[in-house]
Amino acid sequence: MRKCYFDHVGTNPLHPDVLNAMMPYFKEEFGNPLSVYDLGIRARDAIEMAREQVASLINAKPSTVVFTSSGAEANNFALRGIALAKQSHGKHILVSKIEHHSILNSARFLEKSGFAVTYLPVDKYGSVDPEVVKESITKETILISIAHASSEIGTIESIKEIAAITKERNIIFHTDAVATTGNIPVDVRELGVDLLSMAAHQFYGPKGAGALYVREGLRIVPLLYGGIQEGGRRAGTENVPAIVGMGKAAEIAKNEINKRIEHCKRLRDRIIEGALKIPNIYLTGHPADNSDKRLPHHTSFVVEFIEGEAMLLMLSMKGIYAASGSACSSKALKSSPVLLSIGIPSALAQGSIVFSLGIDNSDEDVDYFLAEFPHVISRLREMSPFA
Amino acid sequence: MRKCYFDHVGTNPLHPDVLNAMMPYFKEEFGNPLSVYDLGIRARDAIEMAREQVASLINAKPSTVVFTSSGAEANNFALRGIALAKQSHGKHILVSKIEHHSILNSARFLEKSGFAVTYLPVDKYGSVDPEVVKESITKETILISIAHASSEIGTIESIKEIAAITKERNIIFHTDAVATTGNIPVDVRELGVDLLSMAAHQFYGPKGAGALYVREGLRIVPLLYGGIQEGGRRAGTENVPAIVGMGKAAEIAKNEINKRIEHCKRLRDRIIEGALKIPNIYLTGHPADNSDKRLPHHTSFVVEFIEGEAMLLMLSMKGIYAASGSACSSKALKSSPVLLSIGIPSALAQGSIVFSLGIDNSDEDVDYFLAEFPHVISRLREMSPFA
Repeated sequence: MRKCYFDHVGTNPLHPDVLNAMMPYFKEEFGNPLSVYDLGIRARDAIEMAREQVASLINAKPSTVVFTSSGAEANNFALRGIALAKQSHGKHILVSKIEHHSILNSARFLEKSGFAVTYLPVDKYGSVDPEVVKESITKETILISIAHASSEIGTIESIKEIAAITKERNIIFHTDAVATTGNIPVDVRELGVDLLSMAAHQFYGPKGAGALYVREGLRIVPLLYGGIQEGGRRAGTENVPAIVGMGKAAEIAKNEINKRIEHCKRLRDRIIEGALKIPNIYLTGHPADNSDKRLPHHTSFVVEFIEGEAMLLMLSMKGIYAASGSACSSKALKSSPVLLSIGIPSALAQGSIVFSLGIDNSDEDVDYFLAEFPHVISRLREMSPFA
Repeated sequence: MRKCYFDHVGTNPLHPDVLNAMMPYFKEEFGNPLSVYDLGIRARDAIEMAREQVASLINAKPSTVVFTSSGAEANNFALRGIALAKQSHGKHILVSKIEHHSILNSARFLEKSGFAVTYLPVDKYGSVDPEVVKESITKETILISIAHASSEIGTIESIKEIAAITKERNIIFHTDAVATTGNIPVDVRELGVDLLSMAAHQFYGPKGAGALYVREGLRIVPLLYGGIQEGGRRAGTENVPAIVGMGKAAEIAKNEINKRIEHCKRLRDRIIEGALKIPNIYLTGHPADNSDKRLPHHTSFVVEFIEGEAMLLMLSMKGIYAASGSACSSKALKSSPVLLSIGIPSALAQGSIVFSLGIDNSDEDVDYFLAEFPHVISRLREMSPFA
């Protein structure tokens, strides 16, 4: 049976060159980067090379990249680290309603600690209106966090426009770029953000490595206290192999990004076109022809009369792997807050499904998928009490 | 040139069987553990198997093991998670003066957040007196954290006795067992602790994996917010290969621990006996014959008239890798707070050196070391203005 891995927003397979780059650090190069002898120095040098590679991918200086264990950690670090560093200037934070759980739940934690949080609405495509951001700012606002793109509906936000607003008002601006880094160009100078989160496993790097870009000169309170790793900004013995892997993945992503975009876009457009021929299925997020507003490797739908979970299971029996909303909440069988925020009725939101593409996918995968998907839907609708 | 890696408290080489166990999860088994399809289920199952293996090593139930990215994260999580969960009962915390930086700096962070922290003294061997713990408890005390053993001076603390005191008074007791887990028996039921931190790379497992044992029924506030990973206690896409590696390393440690102890103890005693023949060199921590008070793989000395850093560098040119105090602060050229706490004068504390052994060391390593070490000291003393 053909295997079609269409869940690249869930996680990516590791690029073979990335694994090759990591291997020495699982073997002879096992030193602790803080040790003074050659074994330690080589581990430290490897980390610094990875820092340069990651910095280069986002057009930043190496010293602005702080490695973390995941994108979620980077998001927690950004929100809480800036909230604590800036609390004497005010205690108000803005986030959108469709942020990742690691942002929303960090925001809720901050609410319990005496901060006020405004959850900004989005339009029917999931876009945050920069005007709404502007109107929601108060004298107390210290921090705004809006994701670069949503992994659930593929919507790319107007980060540059929002950054211009925050800069004028001296408010710190963070963007969760976990869904975009390595998949579309991410340039911190062009975007104008102060902080930006990344996760290696979203661009063919390893799990266990993420990073937070922290603009030069911006003070942030650490989330993990301890030793002097990461310039005192993030303690814990460095996960050297994973960091090396993230660096290599960043280097490859930088070289290949245009090829990736072109490849994935073509497959994406075929999936959207084919899927929308099925009755009672709707695209969520921006249409594909609005190409600067939708992730090139992302398709997302709601299918009437069917539950997403059932689709996932039946598709997986056909070797097709997809997601229904965010992987981080896929076991919590609630309607997706993202879909409710863009106005999808709760019943319809149950039929959510996301197909996300990668460099390992081919036209044959899409052919196979387009042949099987309508049958899966028909079968499930036959079984459904709602159809 | 012979290579003698005597810095096992810095980090360990990865056990080859551990790497073999990890490899499939870098290749075909790359799924996100939260995905509902087979690839995700197998990743989830692998994590649960690792949880059983780690739990078995410390005689705990699997559900009490929460994976983290490092021992430092586990320590931060324990202190801040319990402080927040219990703050309505009181805001006083006890730690010893010789805790790891991840404990001390977390405690300082809590002080800034309105908690009171008492830093308990230790005796000349680095032992915390349970009577001093008892006397330092106030009505406000909610949490006590004392490391199972010090990686700097090898001293094993009287955890069981301290746990009995805390249990009587309904105070939560955490122990940082990063230096002990996998190196000496660690049994959470016998020790009677409520929380216990571990790091895989300290027992031939990978960097990037740690864990916190949280006693059944004990509420802890998460440090990392986000998805539903680790039962909602620790968010972020799981580092599946590293967790699998930690599980395998725990399984091997459980099987081999007696052999390891015997092997390392013998080499350790040879090093201590041989090194103490050099004039003006002193053992720190407990003498080796007090065998339940000193880590079996640990030797530590202060050498008069010489700086630790210089010894490290000259030894490394001979292929001998050692540490001078904690790796996490080795680049910060200050006298070790641990050595000052046990009454070593500041000047003498500069000559600190730690040799820690592992299963990869042999009698020939020790022969070579004992032949070279006196020459290194003589050479450095010839160059020293203090000698």
